[in-house]
Amino acid sequence: MGEPAKNITGTSDFQSAVLTLRGLTATDLESVNETILEHLQSSVKMIPEVAGHLINAGGKRLRPVLTLAAAKAFNYDGKHHIRLAAAVELIHGATLLHDDVVDESRLRRGLETANVVWGNKESVLVGDFLFSRSFELMVKTGSLKVLQILSKASCVIAEGEVLQLATQKNIKSTFEMYLEVIKAKTAELFAAAAQAGAVIAGATETEEEAFRAYGQNLGIAYQLVDDALDYSGNEQALGKTVGDDFREGKITLPVVYAIEAARDDEERAFWQRTIGETDQSDADLTQAMQFMQRDDTITRTLDCARSYADKALACLEQLPQNEMTAALADLADLSIARAS
Amino acid sequence: MGEPAKNITGTSDFQSAVLTLRGLTATDLESVNETILEHLQSSVKMIPEVAGHLINAGGKRLRPVLTLAAAKAFNYDGKHHIRLAAAVELIHGATLLHDDVVDESRLRRGLETANVVWGNKESVLVGDFLFSRSFELMVKTGSLKVLQILSKASCVIAEGEVLQLATQKNIKSTFEMYLEVIKAKTAELFAAAAQAGAVIAGATETEEEAFRAYGQNLGIAYQLVDDALDYSGNEQALGKTVGDDFREGKITLPVVYAIEAARDDEERAFWQRTIGETDQSDADLTQAMQFMQRDDTITRTLDCARSYADKALACLEQLPQNEMTAALADLADLSIARAS
Repeated sequence: MGEPAKNITGTSDFQSAVLTLRGLTATDLESVNETILEHLQSSVKMIPEVAGHLINAGGKRLRPVLTLAAAKAFNYDGKHHIRLAAAVELIHGATLLHDDVVDESRLRRGLETANVVWGNKESVLVGDFLFSRSFELMVKTGSLKVLQILSKASCVIAEGEVLQLATQKNIKSTFEMYLEVIKAKTAELFAAAAQAGAVIAGATETEEEAFRAYGQNLGIAYQLVDDALDYSGNEQALGKTVGDDFREGKITLPVVYAIEAARDDEERAFWQRTIGETDQSDADLTQAMQFMQRDDTITRTLDCARSYADKALACLEQLPQNEMTAALADLADLSIARAS
Repeated sequence: MGEPAKNITGTSDFQSAVLTLRGLTATDLESVNETILEHLQSSVKMIPEVAGHLINAGGKRLRPVLTLAAAKAFNYDGKHHIRLAAAVELIHGATLLHDDVVDESRLRRGLETANVVWGNKESVLVGDFLFSRSFELMVKTGSLKVLQILSKASCVIAEGEVLQLATQKNIKSTFEMYLEVIKAKTAELFAAAAQAGAVIAGATETEEEAFRAYGQNLGIAYQLVDDALDYSGNEQALGKTVGDDFREGKITLPVVYAIEAARDDEERAFWQRTIGETDQSDADLTQAMQFMQRDDTITRTLDCARSYADKALACLEQLPQNEMTAALADLADLSIARAS
């Protein structure tokens, strides 16, 4: 992935940029975790078990940290950003539970998925519970604007997931179709998380929109890198198996580029069989990765991610310059430098 | 089911009581249907297809009618009750899509279920979309109180569904456990639908609570009758297959009573095998229904429903006496007189 990018606080990879931001919001983040735990409670004891399995498995807490940092960038000193950040993580958790059912995933964050441990039914219903709890939490902030932003984001995420299902296995999918999917299924929650933090802190409309755009561009870059890592990452660091997207016939940018670059009918037939019909062997994954290497499709995907990271950086120029926005700049800058 | 109950407006069964209420709220209900259709729209065309399949299949619109009638009982003349009623029906639709995945149901309202026509993945994700849309709609009412009532109801519904899953196939389940499940998975949305209508119309706290209690008791009676019909109904009127609950090993009151009434170890072993282990043949369903008939468990379930219908009726005494509350009285009174 080339040289580590230049950055402000001297960190050198994405993980350390996340840690810096988590350090700056450490007290609040602790309260977010407590709020989440509190809201997983239920008289039905399977609920905190299933939800806790996912939520305590050590995700990066990237989305709630965006909410906290956005609020703190305006020196917000209330408590509502805690609730909002917790609500954002609960929405994320709900979508992960449902995603793993839909994708039939077996491993997440290095652990067996809830659908494997408990079952699909349990994952669907506990996902619904988390989703409902997140709205209960948001209502407690008393901000209709925040509720509007996050309920709209939830719709857009669901639309993105359905669109992904509809484009899956379609080897005629284009860059534009791919972008539409990841904007909806991933970037929208990043955008809403950052925007909601700014809104609750009483930011101006320009600032709020700048935070939203920052989140959206960061989210796009993040998903692009994720999709590159699915073919090039270290399994242990990823906590999941390389080639999952390939096995599911998921159309991601490394594949879109590879299909575009296919040199003859035989190569096109390869993609139609493996992705279009998910008729595959392990050797096919190796072959697919060789095509990707030959045609630089991973590098080109990361270049595309870089361009969105740069857009995210540019959004920060309209915002107060302080340690929060400096750390957010590093986060965007280093979003390409990920091993997991 | 004995003689049709006495009632105020001269109707003689549940369906006609529903029709009376729909007639009284006809203009509003038309707007509710338009609002729902509008909110099913999406750039992802599979979404209105899947959601429309369910929502246009001709449900009774019982829950949104409760919201409309509760608001109109206070002569509410705004528009927010339309949005609320539509939101309530969208929540109901979301839970049906997910329920049918969880229960592996094949038939609903006389049509193949969405999970059969499109698939489980599509049903899960479109359910998420409906759920999110319902919150978007609620936000438009500008009432945080209503949002609080309905987000809490959504949590409770999910808890009820998980609890049902946890008690399924457990032949030691008691009346109390069964009641806890149906209060959560069914009666809570009836309660919230009625309460929300009263709240948006500016009812007093006593009136609001009376409507909530009316909805809850009506919902319990409704589910009890549903569970009786699953063993005694007319398949064509039901739009689903008799014995579905039996095949899934679902513990409903007719079964709880039948297990309690088992006369010897052989009969207890029958229930353990058929419900506890869902090891069944068609002849077992016939046998189960014979036990139920011998021990009057369907009649006793309907008697229990009657007692909740009476509680619902009593709640109306604290409310304004007008054509809306008279029609709601009929609805409760006749909730036992159902063929579907």
